[in-house]
Amino acid sequence: MLNLLKANERSIMKIEILKPVLVSNQERAKENRKFFDKSNSLVLNIIGSPGSGKTSVIEQIIKKLKDDYSILVIEGDIKGSIDSERLRKLKIDTIQINTLTECHLDAFMTAQVLPKIKRPYELVLIENVGNLVCPAEFEIGEDYKIAILSTPEGDDKPLKYPLLFHLAKVVIINKIDLLPHLDFSLKKVKKNILSKNPRAVIFEVSAKTQQGFDKLIEFLKKELDKKKIK
Amino acid sequence: MLNLLKANERSIMKIEILKPVLVSNQERAKENRKFFDKSNSLVLNIIGSPGSGKTSVIEQIIKKLKDDYSILVIEGDIKGSIDSERLRKLKIDTIQINTLTECHLDAFMTAQVLPKIKRPYELVLIENVGNLVCPAEFEIGEDYKIAILSTPEGDDKPLKYPLLFHLAKVVIINKIDLLPHLDFSLKKVKKNILSKNPRAVIFEVSAKTQQGFDKLIEFLKKELDKKKIK
Repeated sequence: MLNLLKANERSIMKIEILKPVLVSNQERAKENRKFFDKSNSLVLNIIGSPGSGKTSVIEQIIKKLKDDYSILVIEGDIKGSIDSERLRKLKIDTIQINTLTECHLDAFMTAQVLPKIKRPYELVLIENVGNLVCPAEFEIGEDYKIAILSTPEGDDKPLKYPLLFHLAKVVIINKIDLLPHLDFSLKKVKKNILSKNPRAVIFEVSAKTQQGFDKLIEFLKKELDKKKIK
Repeated sequence: MLNLLKANERSIMKIEILKPVLVSNQERAKENRKFFDKSNSLVLNIIGSPGSGKTSVIEQIIKKLKDDYSILVIEGDIKGSIDSERLRKLKIDTIQINTLTECHLDAFMTAQVLPKIKRPYELVLIENVGNLVCPAEFEIGEDYKIAILSTPEGDDKPLKYPLLFHLAKVVIINKIDLLPHLDFSLKKVKKNILSKNPRAVIFEVSAKTQQGFDKLIEFLKKELDKKKIK
């Protein structure tokens, strides 16, 4: 078995460029953070695989919070605006970012939408590009990352894509309505998540049946109310 | 709505570096191709989201072909060797590549395993890192790419991640056993795939129930036999 180190031509080129890029990204993320702090916004960077149900979970959160809190959604997609069109039907403000060739949002892309934000929002939900790998590497000005993992993806995913699960404060396990049809163990997945991040807060939901959202909404309300006290 | 062009600091840096990197990658991919051509291997670059069932589909292909063809699996994972350990139980040769921080295989990483290949194989299955985006950008020396899309991911994914579906000669729709429990239309997904690639060859399978594999195996046998004639 081979463990390849980064001693190949392309990786060397990438290392040279990636370090200043990441430092520079982090600086820009701090500036974004200052922008959101002016209005005490709770900013969540929502990351998961394609089809893990990021948009469906966001829809449920919006439905349950929009009467009590002002909400903005920033939608990151490579192309198109399928998701933001879906969310706009819920009568909340959305901003679409098309990343074109990029497989993640970064702080600079996020910075470019800030001038479009004309009023304060209590809750800013940023749906990242569907990808378990790269989005985790780039801070964009969020309070924290929320990882969404759906049951059909398998209970081993926190071990195979450890960075996101190490960094995410909250992990939402979605599509629990499919559990009877899958070889997926909630016990195993929780053990795997906690092995990467012992302090992760884990919720089990089904955006389809709406099961499990009460606890998540209660948690988010507490987080939003903490911001109000500040 | 905002469509962000690549006019930010990071993207400019990335454009400058990415062009020579991709050209250089393509050159290296051609060298890898020459290596595999020496033994007339059919080399398939298998790409799909985390949890789409890449390893499970590969398992089924191996079970159905290993008595008649020599098979090597090259496993690309960020960390660990969960999948290659699973496949080794089928008593075939596997080589593990750990990409560490990279979210895809490239031609240089692939090149590094070639000296470890000590005999000719008729079929080389390369399981790329679980990601619908970046792996599509990098040729690694394959005959062609196979995209795996699982039904829980949703029938809109070919529209949201178009490059892979544009490039893949074969698209495998996996987990069709879950169709009764999902809002997923086979008709829609096929229309979406064909809108990106009118010549895509599409198979519908369930690695769990083994449904649909006969047609896929028949197709692969024809492809393998074409190589023999060469």
